Amino acid sequence: MTSLKTKDKNHRQQSTVHRRIVALAGGVGGAKLAHGLAQILPPEDLTVIVNTGDDFEHLGLYISPDLDTVCYTLAGLANPETGWGRVNETWNTIANIEKLGGPNWFRLGDQDFGTHLERTRRLKDGQSLSQVTKDFCKVWDIKHTVLPMSDSPVRTIVDTDEGELAFQEYFVHRHCEPRVKGFRFDGVEFAEPAIGAREAIDSADAIVICPSNPWVSIDPILRVLKKIDKPVIAVSPIIGGKTVKGPAAKMYAELGIEPSALAVAEHYRNLLTGFVLDSKDGQLSDKFKGKILVTDTLMNSNTDRARLAVDVLHFIGSL
Amino acid sequence: MTSLKTKDKNHRQQSTVHRRIVALAGGVGGAKLAHGLAQILPPEDLTVIVNTGDDFEHLGLYISPDLDTVCYTLAGLANPETGWGRVNETWNTIANIEKLGGPNWFRLGDQDFGTHLERTRRLKDGQSLSQVTKDFCKVWDIKHTVLPMSDSPVRTIVDTDEGELAFQEYFVHRHCEPRVKGFRFDGVEFAEPAIGAREAIDSADAIVICPSNPWVSIDPILRVLKKIDKPVIAVSPIIGGKTVKGPAAKMYAELGIEPSALAVAEHYRNLLTGFVLDSKDGQLSDKFKGKILVTDTLMNSNTDRARLAVDVLHFIGSL
Repeated sequence: MTSLKTKDKNHRQQSTVHRRIVALAGGVGGAKLAHGLAQILPPEDLTVIVNTGDDFEHLGLYISPDLDTVCYTLAGLANPETGWGRVNETWNTIANIEKLGGPNWFRLGDQDFGTHLERTRRLKDGQSLSQVTKDFCKVWDIKHTVLPMSDSPVRTIVDTDEGELAFQEYFVHRHCEPRVKGFRFDGVEFAEPAIGAREAIDSADAIVICPSNPWVSIDPILRVLKKIDKPVIAVSPIIGGKTVKGPAAKMYAELGIEPSALAVAEHYRNLLTGFVLDSKDGQLSDKFKGKILVTDTLMNSNTDRARLAVDVLHFIGSL
Repeated sequence: MTSLKTKDKNHRQQSTVHRRIVALAGGVGGAKLAHGLAQILPPEDLTVIVNTGDDFEHLGLYISPDLDTVCYTLAGLANPETGWGRVNETWNTIANIEKLGGPNWFRLGDQDFGTHLERTRRLKDGQSLSQVTKDFCKVWDIKHTVLPMSDSPVRTIVDTDEGELAFQEYFVHRHCEPRVKGFRFDGVEFAEPAIGAREAIDSADAIVICPSNPWVSIDPILRVLKKIDKPVIAVSPIIGGKTVKGPAAKMYAELGIEPSALAVAEHYRNLLTGFVLDSKDGQLSDKFKGKILVTDTLMNSNTDRARLAVDVLHFIGSL
């Protein structure tokens, strides 16, 4: 490997964590670890497979929230305040829609609208979601591979005490208020992994399940991928019984499971080779049968992301 | 009439020009005179019927350029520089579309995108174009009635030396460069006037053909309306052999007709009760057989618009 030829310390340090990785990611938390991995691994050694169960049509546009969050994050275009949308965004399109009495519950910025309009145009023109994603990544100078989990539609439906709700209806419009009873993924039986996803997994040293919502971000991806015969390492999205962002902890509680890092490990059960949980949850590590890494998993900065990625890669190397 | 009860000079002056008017309008020039008439006439006495032959689908959105220009102008929201789009506009959506390699030849601002997105949503939801227009006019505080010429699609096709081109393809994408050989209006045989258009004409004292392009802005409306048994007054869009904006003069020349106010009068032939042409073209007035008004028709300001409207209304009163 070329990196071993150099005496440069950083290079050598990186070479010890140099693995071919497929990361499975949902939105914010997943995007952050994907960005951390992208800071460490060369482009050819990281493929991020992104949940598209949250995708929906709104205002006639095809919107892929997790795919956009991952891409915007990798491109350095993400809004650090909201966890979704673009940095330095303006809001004149949605303001006029709102003034005209149109739906305003799903906030979209002006630049973001451009992404959805152009993606929708290309999809209607016959391009696949993965081809559009590839083209957009090129424009945004994202060198690592980002794939939607599938080019076929899979739609996450949340079963609640108020009946079944489409995911964004539950998540954004209803602010996750209805009590969750279960989930289903419309179309998942017919959805093949996007072109390149299976190959990336086949040539990977390990699969990293990013700290995303197990129920609605990771499960849809796992359902589409079906079988993974590689070491799988998951990073807990639950720290100290709470989620940094999103409804994962609330979902666990409503489904009668105490939300904890351990509950996440239990969620992925036989799939896991190793599990990464936060220092706050170190005491839980005794209860987990598999290999574990206890480290700081909260990612407040780009440095945090890279540090956690290095920790995860070292952990993989040690398995 | 209530206005006769007052001694106020303006009121009395207005009462003498008080007529029930239907104005036929295309984009910029038509919108300006419509705005002039709206400054003079009370809401119940002015209906503006707008060309929709220029309408098209772009980026999945239903775009109605003349309807928007008329509405934005009446609402005081029009961009005075461009003659299309909104004042105080931002351009972040189209900038991102452009960056992503999408079509950028049709410039749409961020607020304007809101109009097209919400209109498209409503049309897909089953609302008619006239209903959407009515709702939008209410939001924009437009008190006079604005109607699309029809709720059915009519599409202006320009026959050129490079073959047939959809109107916006010819007009915006190709900058009116191909030589014009003729026009046709797809769907015009099946298009009924929008609800309210026929009634407005039936109860009108006169029809004012605004200074819009006779070939591609007014002809489609006349074709949809079919029969007009009311006095019709046209205002020439050609001043000194030139158009203020748009390709009308170029079209006349390419069709072998010398562009002039007289050519416009000849265009409308038997339809006209009276014709309004610019002082610059006064010498042409002898050649026109019908009633004529020679006045300043250039509208550089809101005052110009109102003044021309008053002149036209006095002219109608004198017929």
